[in-house]
Amino acid sequence: MEKKEIAVREDILGSNKKVATEIRAKLAPAGILVVNFLSSPGSGKTSLLERIAVTLRPTHKMAVIEGDIETERDAERIRKKGVPAWQITTGGACHLEAKMIARLLPEIPSETEFLFIENVGNLVCPASYDLGESLRCVLLSAPEGDDKPKKYPKAFSTADCLIITKADLIPYLPFDLERAGNEALEINPRLRIFVTSALHGRGIAELVRYFIETRVNMIQRHA
Amino acid sequence: MEKKEIAVREDILGSNKKVATEIRAKLAPAGILVVNFLSSPGSGKTSLLERIAVTLRPTHKMAVIEGDIETERDAERIRKKGVPAWQITTGGACHLEAKMIARLLPEIPSETEFLFIENVGNLVCPASYDLGESLRCVLLSAPEGDDKPKKYPKAFSTADCLIITKADLIPYLPFDLERAGNEALEINPRLRIFVTSALHGRGIAELVRYFIETRVNMIQRHA
Repeated sequence: MEKKEIAVREDILGSNKKVATEIRAKLAPAGILVVNFLSSPGSGKTSLLERIAVTLRPTHKMAVIEGDIETERDAERIRKKGVPAWQITTGGACHLEAKMIARLLPEIPSETEFLFIENVGNLVCPASYDLGESLRCVLLSAPEGDDKPKKYPKAFSTADCLIITKADLIPYLPFDLERAGNEALEINPRLRIFVTSALHGRGIAELVRYFIETRVNMIQRHA
Repeated sequence: MEKKEIAVREDILGSNKKVATEIRAKLAPAGILVVNFLSSPGSGKTSLLERIAVTLRPTHKMAVIEGDIETERDAERIRKKGVPAWQITTGGACHLEAKMIARLLPEIPSETEFLFIENVGNLVCPASYDLGESLRCVLLSAPEGDDKPKKYPKAFSTADCLIITKADLIPYLPFDLERAGNEALEINPRLRIFVTSALHGRGIAELVRYFIETRVNMIQRHA
């Protein structure tokens, strides 16, 4: 990168971090667990959120912010599950930024317990932008291949949990679950790993339990 | 985007375009068809290139430039097919730029007929960077879903051809081939569409014929 480009980028990341810190300082003590979902396009973020809604919504209040370059499609899918959802269309930008989330906060119901943010489908750029989340999840769909963690390390090194999606396709793929997991753990040994299929429901209950426990721990830390 | 950010971005895109135009002005009249492959991570760019190598290499001279954030893995895979390959690791940057290609040009054998460039896996940012190619191909793997063209329109609107990959998985997926194709054509009616499976070989011969014909047309234009 050119010198001027680097300076502008540092400016942007610095002011993004400031807004993200403010969001976290506001929402975490209020008992709202913000979860940032980050992945390639088409790795199944929205389908996973639809499944999570079915399991989590009967007992907890959740809301979703959808990030996309264009279209309202994802928010519409989530609303059909009875969950309040807001769509941010970035109009070309390759990632969400904290200020986009901050602008929506007045609309989020105060009784919300889980606020899921689905980032723009991009395994690179969103990794650099803190959105004020308390939990960052990176998704890797089995068809993307078991060699992705080391090729896109930042998404994996900055995440708290790795969710392998579309596990139902593994029988038809040259995908080695152990290799994918080990490679991700080499980059980030504290990663929690979940193996899921939104189509068949595999792993969803474990994942939802993890979100609930993480929120309880967050509340205890702020008590 | 902030004003300063927009100005720097326009600077970068302007100087990128200049270098790209120089590359094209040099390689196209020399009979080298440069093909830029653009897609999400894990949509099968390298596997497709391995298959193309098997079909194209017996009759034509090809070379490959691999773009990745980290690792030499993809270039190593291509070299195993007997094809000269160079790896660019961007060290974090989310796309290739024309100047990275220009730096490698002295190493590309002058008898090369096809120079394939595999961009960094990212369906967003690489769409804005001309690399001096004469043909741009966007890949969409069936598991990514048939709703992606309108969600990531720039990659589709700037491409010459759309390659649907991993078509062997369609029987196991909620993927509507017609919907994906129609949605892409709505964005870009001049797109040529190919349906392929690198695993089973489907569609590779048609695709390679298209590359060969495109090169012949390019040579005739410059004759």
